[in-house]
Amino acid sequence: MAVDFARPHRRYNPLTGGWVQVSPQRMGRPWQGEVSLPDPPPPSYDPACYLCPGNPRVGGEVNPAYEGVHVFDNDFPALAEDQPSEADHDPLLRAEASAGVCRVICFSPDHGKSLPLLTPEQLRAVVDVWADQTAELGQRFANVQVFENKGAMMGCSNPHPHGQVWATAHLPQELAAEDAHQRAYLADHGRALLLDTATREIAAGERVVEINDDWLAIIPFWAAWPFETLLLPRFAVQRMPQLTGEQRASLASILKALTTRYDNLFQTSFPYSMGWHQAPYGPDSLSPDIDHWQLHAHFYPPLLRSAEVRKFMVGYEMLAEPQRDLTPERAAEMLRAVSGLVHYRA
Amino acid sequence: MAVDFARPHRRYNPLTGGWVQVSPQRMGRPWQGEVSLPDPPPPSYDPACYLCPGNPRVGGEVNPAYEGVHVFDNDFPALAEDQPSEADHDPLLRAEASAGVCRVICFSPDHGKSLPLLTPEQLRAVVDVWADQTAELGQRFANVQVFENKGAMMGCSNPHPHGQVWATAHLPQELAAEDAHQRAYLADHGRALLLDTATREIAAGERVVEINDDWLAIIPFWAAWPFETLLLPRFAVQRMPQLTGEQRASLASILKALTTRYDNLFQTSFPYSMGWHQAPYGPDSLSPDIDHWQLHAHFYPPLLRSAEVRKFMVGYEMLAEPQRDLTPERAAEMLRAVSGLVHYRA
Ligand SMILES: O=P(O)(O)O[C@H]1O[C@H](CO)[C@@H](O)[C@H](O)[C@H]1O
Ligand SMILES: O=P(O)(O)O[C@H]1O[C@H](CO)[C@@H](O)[C@H](O)[C@H]1O
Repeated sequence: MAVDFARPHRRYNPLTGGWVQVSPQRMGRPWQGEVSLPDPPPPSYDPACYLCPGNPRVGGEVNPAYEGVHVFDNDFPALAEDQPSEADHDPLLRAEASAGVCRVICFSPDHGKSLPLLTPEQLRAVVDVWADQTAELGQRFANVQVFENKGAMMGCSNPHPHGQVWATAHLPQELAAEDAHQRAYLADHGRALLLDTATREIAAGERVVEINDDWLAIIPFWAAWPFETLLLPRFAVQRMPQLTGEQRASLASILKALTTRYDNLFQTSFPYSMGWHQAPYGPDSLSPDIDHWQLHAHFYPPLLRSAEVRKFMVGYEMLAEPQRDLTPERAAEMLRAVSGLVHYRA
Repeated sequence: MAVDFARPHRRYNPLTGGWVQVSPQRMGRPWQGEVSLPDPPPPSYDPACYLCPGNPRVGGEVNPAYEGVHVFDNDFPALAEDQPSEADHDPLLRAEASAGVCRVICFSPDHGKSLPLLTPEQLRAVVDVWADQTAELGQRFANVQVFENKGAMMGCSNPHPHGQVWATAHLPQELAAEDAHQRAYLADHGRALLLDTATREIAAGERVVEINDDWLAIIPFWAAWPFETLLLPRFAVQRMPQLTGEQRASLASILKALTTRYDNLFQTSFPYSMGWHQAPYGPDSLSPDIDHWQLHAHFYPPLLRSAEVRKFMVGYEMLAEPQRDLTPERAAEMLRAVSGLVHYRA
């Protein structure tokens, strides 16, 4: 007998090996907990912003009068490049030095222009910088983690539209898990896990949020966050620098549509953490052994019911297993029901 | 050469197989992001509270005029007991029905009395209920997850002092990982991982926060959250119901001391998610094969610098690997520097 998705059940994430507890009957629960104030729409220029063109940064340096995408080294990096490769092997106190760099990517000189408010051409420029950073840092580091924290709720310390790149000599744990699971799937099935996923999800349709000739955005079957999405290429590709000009343009286009839907859902600048996973570099890149990999992006937005009420991944989630209330299928339906073309503030 | 803990490094968690990125040099970073208002101290009774004695609950039922610890079935449970055991085996869309129960445990009739403000006797009564719930639910379920979400920041929807129990027929993923790692450690070393950890940490001393004859609270070497603690028995024990009267009394005592230190650190009712991990029941409990297990509690508090400034586990943390700024050794030192005896509000 098939699992009844209207009743409590668990779903398996074949990309990481994790599980999620789904409790669709729980959406009716009243909420008396924390209510967040949505971030107000920011102005085009903020004299106090340390990311606006021409303003001084926290470190004291002054930003150039940049006009497009602007990349600089993080003033308070979590990583350092000049690290000797030390390791302690005690089974209870195991540690290793970690070398890497942290950079900041300003998406626009305009303080108020988050991704959905950029033009397709401006978004394409962001994609190009992501790809260039990957190519450059991939020559020295095993993993190039491109990401964006958006909104105060997601720990973003400045509303100026910006993302980050943290490149590391080691493969971080989430990447290591995805690498192992994609490798095993290719060995078992002869096809890349995320290419199979794209084909299957297009055929099923019910979890699709956006689609164009090259790209697909779905709420994955195993999504943990209420409106979590997975952005997938419809063709085999392992890393951003491989993308052709056309594929970059269509990526910019689906990014605009997806983030427009997000903002329209609760008529707010939708907070999230998003980031790209791509095949590791380093020793691995010297071998052709990355066929199991597919480039993809995860969006992890915290909101659940409105611009004010979020999902908390706490308690049972931290100690036992992530839990979600509404089903991925219902979340996809809700995102499909709002416009991907016209932004609510337009 | 040994790893330099004053520079960026990674530490390995032998209990789960996870890693954490430690960036001690980053504590100087200025914070311009979200500042939370601490929860105000609640009154002894709140007529609008659905957990206070004699008040109506959200489901409509009326609470009894309870005087000690009070347990009832969650009005909006994430789990349901009467579940057939269905499973879908598609490698990309794998799911299974999940059976379980969710209960709420009010720690005190007094709306304002969080754990550190209870008397040792009242805390002992909480420990007894945790043990009794475990024994009762362990007869029908593989895992009994006892936990508490404290504070609005941790998704707690009501300041009335309360915790929860979610019991499930399956082993949730975090427990499955701890089970596998404890099993492997016993096979390799002939001793239980967490008993060895207790011995080693007492000898080292630098990560110890609280200790008594039976129990030990440490910031584990591999802690991800700034002031995360691990509460360990100093004797072999797999589950709460096995604890003797004396061990329960000394547990109540260390719980009071640890949570008093937490509150004193930033002079606030310290938010956290905490919960107990114990040996699974079910098929496993019929065999004596739980020697690799040690009962223990994790406390995951979000605060980083003050009552207002928290750590956000977002972006890099969600996509790649958890990251912390201050070292576990420094965090332990800070918690040791405040009183475990006198609460700041006393
Ligand atoms: O059950 P509560 O307190 O209403 O809800 C809280 O705890 C649950 C279990 O950790 C979480 O799933 C919820 O996200 C959280 O808000
Ligand atoms: O680098 P930021 O924006 O100052 O900081 C933010 O992103 C980092 C990377 O995801 C996190 O480690 C921080 O907790 C978060 O506040």
